Amino acid sequence: MSVITNGSEPLFLGVDGGGSKCRAVIVDSRGEIRGTGLGGPANPYQNFTQALDSVGHATAAALSAAGMAPHQAGQLHACLGLAGVNVPSVHDRLLAWTHPYADIDVRTDLYVACVGAHHGEEGAVIIAGTGSCGYAYVAGQETILGGHGFPVGDKGSGAWTGLEAVRHVLLALDGFASPSLLTERILAKLEVHDPISVVQILGERGVRGYAALAPLVFTTAREGDPVAEAIVREGAAYLSALARRLLDQKPPRLSMLGGLVPMLMPWLDPDVAGHVAPPLAPPEWGAAWLAQQRWQARQTA
Amino acid sequence: MSVITNGSEPLFLGVDGGGSKCRAVIVDSRGEIRGTGLGGPANPYQNFTQALDSVGHATAAALSAAGMAPHQAGQLHACLGLAGVNVPSVHDRLLAWTHPYADIDVRTDLYVACVGAHHGEEGAVIIAGTGSCGYAYVAGQETILGGHGFPVGDKGSGAWTGLEAVRHVLLALDGFASPSLLTERILAKLEVHDPISVVQILGERGVRGYAALAPLVFTTAREGDPVAEAIVREGAAYLSALARRLLDQKPPRLSMLGGLVPMLMPWLDPDVAGHVAPPLAPPEWGAAWLAQQRWQARQTA
Repeated sequence: MSVITNGSEPLFLGVDGGGSKCRAVIVDSRGEIRGTGLGGPANPYQNFTQALDSVGHATAAALSAAGMAPHQAGQLHACLGLAGVNVPSVHDRLLAWTHPYADIDVRTDLYVACVGAHHGEEGAVIIAGTGSCGYAYVAGQETILGGHGFPVGDKGSGAWTGLEAVRHVLLALDGFASPSLLTERILAKLEVHDPISVVQILGERGVRGYAALAPLVFTTAREGDPVAEAIVREGAAYLSALARRLLDQKPPRLSMLGGLVPMLMPWLDPDVAGHVAPPLAPPEWGAAWLAQQRWQARQTA
Repeated sequence: MSVITNGSEPLFLGVDGGGSKCRAVIVDSRGEIRGTGLGGPANPYQNFTQALDSVGHATAAALSAAGMAPHQAGQLHACLGLAGVNVPSVHDRLLAWTHPYADIDVRTDLYVACVGAHHGEEGAVIIAGTGSCGYAYVAGQETILGGHGFPVGDKGSGAWTGLEAVRHVLLALDGFASPSLLTERILAKLEVHDPISVVQILGERGVRGYAALAPLVFTTAREGDPVAEAIVREGAAYLSALARRLLDQKPPRLSMLGGLVPMLMPWLDPDVAGHVAPPLAPPEWGAAWLAQQRWQARQTA
């Protein structure tokens, strides 16, 4: 990770940005990893300025890990995989951005995740982390399902799971629903007892605050709490239906990615769970691979 | 409305601020209305700066209607009824505000609505507009139920109704739910056909964008659409339960306020609907009445 580039060797930057964090990797032309870096939330649809800041931080960290100076970003052939770039207004703003790289390609987080998960081959992925989404790239055709964001879409995601749980907690605190173990656990985790404090804390923490409650909902569901179990079952049923729709496209492989996956697996329908294969490489690797493919295409053109 | 004050006669400003708009009224010591004014959204929990701007605009409009100059705000004894001021951090920021009035009192929008609806007497109110909330002031005791805001609370409100409808539309567009008349109507109203455009438009319009769809959900429910009917019935059942809990406090009167009320009435349980009495005066009148009571108490003290 300490090889100094002489400026003539091509280097590729892959970035994977999502609602919670952003990862960057610098890869050389032999596919060797020179450095990796981590940044904050990078969903340009939710917060454009913050997303570019996070990409910048992750890139700077990867440059530093590769033994390179910040200004050497200008040597990198970049590919950014970012959530929300399929929204036309966001895509337009990104194209107008004066970036610091040698050249840049912007793709959806879904596409780079799929490319990474199947090592450059076609396939399908389901993301289940802060948000949720399904994606397939088969016979050169894209299929995108879900991924409409918080609070209106992303069923089965961490943020959706947390939102449904907090909705129930507030109804229970007001006496409109039966309190259960889940009510107790969520209040203990938030360290408050009244609805106003719950609303205030989650108002400050936003989407990630809801997603941070999801592991607790899964734990409580496993202990048999009927409210937690109903939420988890509804989310898992949606994600099972999502997987079946992707499998209809006959992808060579299907992978699931995101922080919720280990908790989610036991709740998926068995026929779906049996089709899930582990991802072969992370999304940022997929982005770097795409940057390299694009560079090679230009060399031979 | 064109009586010029000589600066010695006390004048009272009442303001009612909520998620969609803000109304101001200037009342003199005989209870006569000197001027009224309208401003934009004034929920300091959602957007503090915007809320104070809206209060300023509504006040300026009321001063102008009363034939007074903007700087004469300094003559007004003000009472602001604002959504969200029961959140401690919001209350603290409001107390630190350098206001332009002779003196100021800040109360919840619920309290001033209740005072207005029952002409200064005790009672209960349910707000069903952009948001929803229940409030009773009986035997000097306050009861507040619901009102936890979008997207986690405010069941049965316009924003909740719109959110549930759009959630279904997105599932239907992706093929995870059966499309119905409601799907067609919402897409026609938004003038788009695909999920990304739906998400983009509602992302721009926010809470009010969801609430603006509620009348369409009620119309479609009345035409027998099962999806719209299920949403409206779930919201109305919650508001009926809310009303029953308030009636348990034995308020002399119960009123319902907000843009959703006329549509909502036929869906409420008949025992609840039979208890609903029309509001006697609007919330901003209630706020002005409170400002006057406070001033009189100081005169006799």
